[in-house]
Amino acid sequence: MLVIVFCRYLQEAFNVPLVIQITDDEKCIFKNLNPEDSKRFGRENVKDIIACGFDVTKTFIFSNFDYVSRCSKFYENIVVTGKCVTRNKIDGTFGFTGEDPVAKYSFPAVQAVPSFSSSFPHLFEEDIPCLIPCAIDQDPYFRMTRDVAPRLGYRKPALIESSFFPALRASGKNGKMSASDANSAIYMNDSAKDIKKKINGAVSGGRDNMDDHKKYGANLEEDIPFKYLSFFLEDDAELEHIRKEYGEGRMLTGAVKMRLTRVLTEIVENHRRARAAVTEQMVDAFMAARPLPSMFE
Amino acid sequence: MLVIVFCRYLQEAFNVPLVIQITDDEKCIFKNLNPEDSKRFGRENVKDIIACGFDVTKTFIFSNFDYVSRCSKFYENIVVTGKCVTRNKIDGTFGFTGEDPVAKYSFPAVQAVPSFSSSFPHLFEEDIPCLIPCAIDQDPYFRMTRDVAPRLGYRKPALIESSFFPALRASGKNGKMSASDANSAIYMNDSAKDIKKKINGAVSGGRDNMDDHKKYGANLEEDIPFKYLSFFLEDDAELEHIRKEYGEGRMLTGAVKMRLTRVLTEIVENHRRARAAVTEQMVDAFMAARPLPSMFE
Repeated sequence: MLVIVFCRYLQEAFNVPLVIQITDDEKCIFKNLNPEDSKRFGRENVKDIIACGFDVTKTFIFSNFDYVSRCSKFYENIVVTGKCVTRNKIDGTFGFTGEDPVAKYSFPAVQAVPSFSSSFPHLFEEDIPCLIPCAIDQDPYFRMTRDVAPRLGYRKPALIESSFFPALRASGKNGKMSASDANSAIYMNDSAKDIKKKINGAVSGGRDNMDDHKKYGANLEEDIPFKYLSFFLEDDAELEHIRKEYGEGRMLTGAVKMRLTRVLTEIVENHRRARAAVTEQMVDAFMAARPLPSMFE
Repeated sequence: MLVIVFCRYLQEAFNVPLVIQITDDEKCIFKNLNPEDSKRFGRENVKDIIACGFDVTKTFIFSNFDYVSRCSKFYENIVVTGKCVTRNKIDGTFGFTGEDPVAKYSFPAVQAVPSFSSSFPHLFEEDIPCLIPCAIDQDPYFRMTRDVAPRLGYRKPALIESSFFPALRASGKNGKMSASDANSAIYMNDSAKDIKKKINGAVSGGRDNMDDHKKYGANLEEDIPFKYLSFFLEDDAELEHIRKEYGEGRMLTGAVKMRLTRVLTEIVENHRRARAAVTEQMVDAFMAARPLPSMFE
C-alpha cells in the first residue's frame, strides 16, 4: 500500500501518466486460486488503489487476465520477452525447480512487459522511459526486464524500490509482515480497537524499568511504533521532537504507542471512507483501455 | 496439407463445426521469426487452407497472436493448463533443456487449449467433445492435454493422427519430407515442369533391368510414386489395377511416374486456381470470432 501512496505522490509531483498492473494471473498461478476468484480479488484491490486518490485522467489500471484479451501487442511482447530468457536464467532468478508448474515459468514475462510502452498502444505512440516504483521483492523481475529490453530494441525501465515495512511483532530489523499472522500488520479494515490492541502488542524499544528508561532512553532501532511513526506521521517537526524525547528517555513507550494509534486510526478511517465511495463505475473507468487526455496537454 | 483435406472430408461427412488453430506464436518462438512475419506467414497459410474448400458457415480459423487478444477465456485456459503441467513433464515430453527460452515452455499450453470448447465462448455454450485430426508429431501436445483435461473438469480431446508423408527422395519407410531439400516434396506452388522433374527423380521400386522387372515385378514397399498415387488417386479401381500390373512387372516405372505427375499437376493447378480466388475479405470472414449459424440448424 505504501508503494501505491508513493506512486500517487510521484504522479502529482511530476504530472505523469501512471499504469498499474494487477497480476491476477499471478495469484491464480502461485496462490492456487481459480481465475474467477483471482479476478474478483484483483478488482477489490483496484478499489483500494482508487481510494488512495488517483487522477482517472492520468491513470490506467489493468488486470493481466483482462488486458491480455484486449491488446494483441501485450501478448506479442510476452512472447518475444520469453524468447530472450532461458529456463536456466528463470530457475536461477526465481528458484523454480522441475516440480514447479510451467505456468510459473510463463509469468515473469507477463510481469515484465508493462515496462515497455509499446504494450499500451492506446496510451503511448512512441517508446518512452518507464519508472517502476515497487517493493524490493519485485526486483528480480525487473532486473530480468532490464537485461531483455535492449535485445528487443526497447528502453530499460528504471526502478525505485521500497524496503519492507517491519512487522509489528518481529525483531524490528529483518521482520517482514506475514499474512499468516494477523497481528503482525495493521489492515485497512481493522477497527480502531484492533489497531490499538495490535500497537500495544508491538515490539518496543523502551527499557525494562523506568530508571533504565530515563537513564538510557528508548532503543529507537528496535522500536517498531517509532519506526511506524517515521513512515506515517506527516509532521516532521513532531517526529523529530518524539525522536529526541523518546530516545533520551523523557517520553514513555505508552505515549508513543498512543500517538501512533491515533495516526493510524485516522489513516485507516479516511481510507475506509474513501474506499466506500469507490463505485463499480469508477473501477470500470480506471480500467478502460483508453487514451489518457491529460498526457497531451 | 493432407490433414487439412481430411478435416474438410470430416466436416462434410459429419456436418460439424471445425476450428483451425494457426500457431503463429509457435513460428515466432521456434523459428526465430518476429511477430509481424509470423503473423504474415500465418495469414498466407490461412489462404491455402481456405482454398481447400471449407464452408465459412461451419469453420472458424484463428491465429494465436490474434485470438488471445480477443478472448479472455483463452488466456485463462492457458494459465490453468500451465498450472497442471510440471516443468519436468514438459522437459520429458518435448526434450527442452535449461538453455531453451522460457517462451518454449509456455507454448504447449497454448497449443492445448483449443481442445477445450470453453476456449470459444462465441461458438460453444457447453462442454462438447473435440476430435483433433493432426500429424503424428503433434501427438505429445495432445497426450499432455488429455492428462490435464479431467483435472480442469473438461472432456479429453480425441485424436486421429496421420502418418508422415514419405519424402520423394528418401528410402521410403522412415523418410520424412524436409523443408531444407526442395526436391524432397512437391509444393503447392511448383510448376508442372518442377513436378515432372521431382517425380522423375523420386525413389523407385522398379528393378534394375527389364528382365528382372518382368520377373519379380516392382517393389511397391519401396516405390514412392506408387505410395503417392495411393494417397492422391481418387479412383480406387485404377489404383488396384496399377498395384497389380506394376507389382507383377507388366507396367513400367515410367508409366507410374507419368500417371502421378498428371494427378499431382491437376491437384496443384486446381489448388492454385482456388487459392488465387481467396480474397483478404474471405480470410477476415473465416477468422472473425463469431457464432457459426450452421451449428444450430
